[in-house]
Amino acid sequence: MTSQRHEADAMRRAIEFSRRGPANGANPRVGCVILDASGRVIAEGWHRGRGTDHAEVAALSALTDRSLAIGATAVVTLEPCNHTGTTGPCSEALIDAGVSRVVYSVADPGASSSGGAERLREAGIDVEAGLLVNEGEENIRPWLTAMRRGTPFVTVKWASSLDGRVAAADGTSRWITGPSARADVHRRRAEAGAIVAGTGTVIADDPSLTARDADGRELPEQPIPVIVGRRSVPRDSRVLAHPAGVIEYPSRDLPGLLEVLATRDVRHVFVEGGPTVASAFLAAGLADEVLVYVAPTVLGGPLTAITDIGVSTISEQARMRFDHVELLGDDVLLVARPLTMNHMHTTKEDD
Amino acid sequence: MTSQRHEADAMRRAIEFSRRGPANGANPRVGCVILDASGRVIAEGWHRGRGTDHAEVAALSALTDRSLAIGATAVVTLEPCNHTGTTGPCSEALIDAGVSRVVYSVADPGASSSGGAERLREAGIDVEAGLLVNEGEENIRPWLTAMRRGTPFVTVKWASSLDGRVAAADGTSRWITGPSARADVHRRRAEAGAIVAGTGTVIADDPSLTARDADGRELPEQPIPVIVGRRSVPRDSRVLAHPAGVIEYPSRDLPGLLEVLATRDVRHVFVEGGPTVASAFLAAGLADEVLVYVAPTVLGGPLTAITDIGVSTISEQARMRFDHVELLGDDVLLVARPLTMNHMHTTKEDD
Repeated sequence: MTSQRHEADAMRRAIEFSRRGPANGANPRVGCVILDASGRVIAEGWHRGRGTDHAEVAALSALTDRSLAIGATAVVTLEPCNHTGTTGPCSEALIDAGVSRVVYSVADPGASSSGGAERLREAGIDVEAGLLVNEGEENIRPWLTAMRRGTPFVTVKWASSLDGRVAAADGTSRWITGPSARADVHRRRAEAGAIVAGTGTVIADDPSLTARDADGRELPEQPIPVIVGRRSVPRDSRVLAHPAGVIEYPSRDLPGLLEVLATRDVRHVFVEGGPTVASAFLAAGLADEVLVYVAPTVLGGPLTAITDIGVSTISEQARMRFDHVELLGDDVLLVARPLTMNHMHTTKEDD
Repeated sequence: MTSQRHEADAMRRAIEFSRRGPANGANPRVGCVILDASGRVIAEGWHRGRGTDHAEVAALSALTDRSLAIGATAVVTLEPCNHTGTTGPCSEALIDAGVSRVVYSVADPGASSSGGAERLREAGIDVEAGLLVNEGEENIRPWLTAMRRGTPFVTVKWASSLDGRVAAADGTSRWITGPSARADVHRRRAEAGAIVAGTGTVIADDPSLTARDADGRELPEQPIPVIVGRRSVPRDSRVLAHPAGVIEYPSRDLPGLLEVLATRDVRHVFVEGGPTVASAFLAAGLADEVLVYVAPTVLGGPLTAITDIGVSTISEQARMRFDHVELLGDDVLLVARPLTMNHMHTTKEDD
């Protein structure tokens, strides 16, 4: 029998492996590690995106001999699915392979895909749920939020001076934050399913809205650009040549937009295109995460990152908490999330 | 002969001891550790403020037997002074005591008090300068800046939301930052010689401008409150009952104010009283340090921490660099200093 320590180590390893898969897809990142009876790792697998093997099947396929699965323990970051989608149910694959124990971290929130644990138990397999569940949930936070709620997880991002300005008085802003911060933005863009900008930003800045590496080359994963607003997008705008296509959304109904994106299997929306759009998402209470890249400079003047969000008196503020603070080159990244959300930190130091 | 390691350890200890002295006075915080020939600590001392013994004399007085000083090494954070002020010159005290070696970190920048090292060498004492000079200078940065430049070191402080607001649209602001951040402000206030607020803030908020502990009790050290601006201060304002007195400065000539404060032996000015005054110091290029307490909330609206500082285009920005980033309860403290200042970090990662 494998020990708790072996299984916890294997779960951390499975989480690591999960991150080799794409973060921007309809499916979550999942990793699986198979242990023999002594707790030794005998195979590993991860999900490479919709239409490819799930992590459990990938791990079983990686065994040097399929008979090694008999009596083995499968450690997997997400509850094995119980339905036939583009691939068959993982619960049946594990049963057929002969594993005797399955340990998973996060319960499957999918209405059609859940039930895997129950199916495994019916087949006589020992099942343990919730191992390292905080880490497991945090690893797929946007996907999990989207599946539980039915609409995509929303990240609102801006880069500003210490005093919250996105540009000098004349609109010039190159550069406020440095290359490390900008590279971090591109990496995070590539992990989102869609990127939202306002028509004002598209008209003023003509951004390509692609996720690029430090040399300006497009990354393999690209979010779908979404242009929000009633003004028309100039036909020669660079975003119209985006490799993932483009969604033009000529309305201010942001909950409606999230519904539309949910039907397109978008799990994570990255809002970064201008103060008007960022403020609108915040005013509507739709931000699940705020990313602020703060540069060590003070600008003053009229061009604030956030305009008005309807907070007329202090008691109306929507408190958040810092989830992450990071130095990025010369800049600091502050990540805040709503206090009301479930996330890894559950205690509040000061009241 | 004491080893380099013994002396470096002793210097770190001397820096620690120096911090027992007051930070807000005319004199710097200085610590001294005396080592015997084998490198063992035989006495320690620190300066308790103007009119009391300097650190070297305090350490010599702490010897169980004055003859132990003969052949000993004095490790001191600042070059021993060479003049008679309210106390006698430390160089003579060390010579008289019979020490054979003096190691110091920071050269004395004072026009009348410097020359101690030269005097010691003339007396045949082995003198080493500059041990752990970065740490030594950082430990007395405001005092050192003030002595080198002739005007006080200026800290500009504000507390804001993630988007740079100091209050909701109606002016309410209690509370944006939490108790840990506010306690840090009071601790830092107590280390400054003066605290500056604008008449607008005094009229609107009626602050006491005292440094207080978590229970609201006044700390032993209090900065002198300075009220800047042409509007008159209401005679029932709480600040007029401040234990350190009050300076009313009915002018917008901020360099002139710093000259006035220099004549009052103020080495460190803490500017925290409102967006108008903070912006004026930044616009005048007078900030040596910016402290921003950022709360995990977004407010939007018109009440920005900084108003206008005359940056009309991005190339006019005065870049700084982050010197320190700290979590304080639910909030984050960002400390930035001008790029052009000498301080502990001398390399720039990104350009």
